Amino acid sequence: MPGQKNPDGKPIRVALLGCGTVGTEVARLLTEQAADLTARVGAPVELVGIAVRKPNKHREVPSELLTTDAEALVASDVDVVVEVIGGIEPARSLLLGALNAGKSVVTANKALLAEHSGELFAAADASGADLYFEAAVAGAIPLLRPLRESLAGDRITRVMGIVNGTTNFILSGMDATGAGYNETLEEASRLGYAEADPTADVDGFDAASKAAILASLAFHSRVTAADVHREGISAVSAADIAAAKGLGRTVKLLAICERVSHGDEESVSVRVHPAMIPRSHPLASVGGAFNAVFVEADAAGEMMFYGQGAGGAPTASAVLGDLVAVARNRVAGGHGPRESAYAALPARPMGQTPTRYHISLDVEDKPGVLAQVAAVFAEHGVSIAAVRQEGRVADASLVIVTHAATDAALRSTVDKVGGLPIVRDVVSVMRVEGGES
Amino acid sequence: MPGQKNPDGKPIRVALLGCGTVGTEVARLLTEQAADLTARVGAPVELVGIAVRKPNKHREVPSELLTTDAEALVASDVDVVVEVIGGIEPARSLLLGALNAGKSVVTANKALLAEHSGELFAAADASGADLYFEAAVAGAIPLLRPLRESLAGDRITRVMGIVNGTTNFILSGMDATGAGYNETLEEASRLGYAEADPTADVDGFDAASKAAILASLAFHSRVTAADVHREGISAVSAADIAAAKGLGRTVKLLAICERVSHGDEESVSVRVHPAMIPRSHPLASVGGAFNAVFVEADAAGEMMFYGQGAGGAPTASAVLGDLVAVARNRVAGGHGPRESAYAALPARPMGQTPTRYHISLDVEDKPGVLAQVAAVFAEHGVSIAAVRQEGRVADASLVIVTHAATDAALRSTVDKVGGLPIVRDVVSVMRVEGGES
Repeated sequence: MPGQKNPDGKPIRVALLGCGTVGTEVARLLTEQAADLTARVGAPVELVGIAVRKPNKHREVPSELLTTDAEALVASDVDVVVEVIGGIEPARSLLLGALNAGKSVVTANKALLAEHSGELFAAADASGADLYFEAAVAGAIPLLRPLRESLAGDRITRVMGIVNGTTNFILSGMDATGAGYNETLEEASRLGYAEADPTADVDGFDAASKAAILASLAFHSRVTAADVHREGISAVSAADIAAAKGLGRTVKLLAICERVSHGDEESVSVRVHPAMIPRSHPLASVGGAFNAVFVEADAAGEMMFYGQGAGGAPTASAVLGDLVAVARNRVAGGHGPRESAYAALPARPMGQTPTRYHISLDVEDKPGVLAQVAAVFAEHGVSIAAVRQEGRVADASLVIVTHAATDAALRSTVDKVGGLPIVRDVVSVMRVEGGES
Repeated sequence: MPGQKNPDGKPIRVALLGCGTVGTEVARLLTEQAADLTARVGAPVELVGIAVRKPNKHREVPSELLTTDAEALVASDVDVVVEVIGGIEPARSLLLGALNAGKSVVTANKALLAEHSGELFAAADASGADLYFEAAVAGAIPLLRPLRESLAGDRITRVMGIVNGTTNFILSGMDATGAGYNETLEEASRLGYAEADPTADVDGFDAASKAAILASLAFHSRVTAADVHREGISAVSAADIAAAKGLGRTVKLLAICERVSHGDEESVSVRVHPAMIPRSHPLASVGGAFNAVFVEADAAGEMMFYGQGAGGAPTASAVLGDLVAVARNRVAGGHGPRESAYAALPARPMGQTPTRYHISLDVEDKPGVLAQVAAVFAEHGVSIAAVRQEGRVADASLVIVTHAATDAALRSTVDKVGGLPIVRDVVSVMRVEGGES
């Protein structure tokens, strides 16, 4: 699109939509680092307007930049639109308007990307504009650019990580104190680590959006939030945490994207759920609000990316990096990567996804119990990796870790085992990831 | 450079210079993943020739592609030159020839980049070609693209990491077994983890080249290998390792690039040396041939990148990622990032660089020893962070960890202390990094 090339060092004019925690930092960095950004881009980067709902609430940015008319700001003479409003509308319409008019977009909006990336990419492609969204997943951690670009010559097989700080803070807290879920969530809210309405975090919606974005990029396929199997952490009990400890494990909410082969065909399993991982696993020591993501690729092997997954300044760092990239593209001509969905791998239903379970039972303390339980596993074709049985005063504890089987077979096994007369209580059932039995 | 744009899906013609471990993998991946690469680039990527010294030694690549005339191959009708020969010449002349003719370059050559990046970038800039070199540092780990692009809107303050697998393998071995340096090096050679001539690795030349590249990108300044203070691991003794253990630390060869402020001026300290780091530090658990790099930036905070730092397939993954990027640029027009050296920060001499020392002494076991030793530190303006003194049968052990002081002051202090009559032996002197005293 030669019409959009800017070889003359004309300022790159930027509109900012939204001025919350992230937007305020973006505005601050754009101003404070103006000289550096000019040198890095090859042209001045100029913030020309900030769309907000309540202008008098934003004392920390220059008042003359503020407007309530986001649509007019997008339609004005700007080169790049930075969106940090979040949510689907009006963000979607505003960004489509920008892209259709050939204006490049930098966004941190994971929910929008996870539902409407196809439409947004198509608009960018048609007009020659750029669409960058590094800040949408794992905050400051450079992760999407490595997936989209650095590993573009490799075959990624798996992406697994901790991508939600709130749930990680809660699970770390439960692990440290032995306290229950509700109590720890309250503590997290009091400390500002959980929103007033924590649903998006604790029910896994936020992580599921991020998983959809990661899977789309890793597997060159269009994966939306609806394709992601999602379980939050509200059902994680103190008993689950204790059971994990007993096995040298800890519980984390994981986003997992993996290639699954079945015969000649391939599909992708994309899921968000709590899982027990070994305490020796590098993800186990990721505490508090930090994020970390493992990537496995055929040639590159295993890689890990670690850093701050949220917060104003870290997210703004990712936004500014993208802004420099799209501004450089304006100056040099050309554009960044387009949607790469040519592989079009289907999403595999959770029931057919191979996974592993940990099951902790209270059983009667008498001979033959293990035989009865093991028979149910055998019946469902589920192979047992490890068993630990311990007699107590009145009953016994039976802990089983399985080999991989389909999630559906594992669920049926648990249902059937739970109904056995010799089983007094199903104490804890949780998936197992990260190697070792 | 519109003349080099290729919007018609014409094949991108690639010349490969060198066919060792990495080159063989590059050729294999280019062939095996041809369909994927075509889809990702938007045009076929075609390997048209491989320059080698002895064609009959390369059975694993198609013989019709082999040539001994690298110069003619570069001069032929190719779009991209991939260089995995290593060393300064003939690589430098071949790549300058390619760039001058407007052909993009992908190289894994750290030594060349660390000495001649200015010249190479200038040639790329003049002709509109691309120069990518992700594989030159930390193998498969996406690290240079994050520094050059993802963090282009942030202010990086520090880069610290393990970037040489051979020395890490040796130091890990010494830590595990308590054996000396020579013995462990022999073991590493036997297992194939050290070259027949290990000088480039054990004397820190390889790490110093990588540090120069990292510092150039992180600080937007031209840093060459000559600017890097370099100490290898051959002087690390079993006593050093034991002293580190006694402090809950381990010894790693670190590449450190940091911004140093003094008054209103800034400079960069770039250095490679062994250092004690706490065993709880994430770099401490990086074992064997793996690499890991910490990056700290003002807005993004602390990040870590981890993965395989060497080997044919991992390095080839990084080369292929760059190849996809330059091929996409050919298809879309435009080009990747240029040299960004506008900040032109000077390199700070090691003597003036703030650092911290651990010093372990055998001293006479009598009153007043600590007072005499402490007086020498005070004389040189070096502040002590921690002391541990332990009486033994005939003498005493005195371990001191300092606060930060200039390296020159610390060296003078050690010299003076070593000459005190009450000091029987200087057991171990080593720099300390990674927090805690």
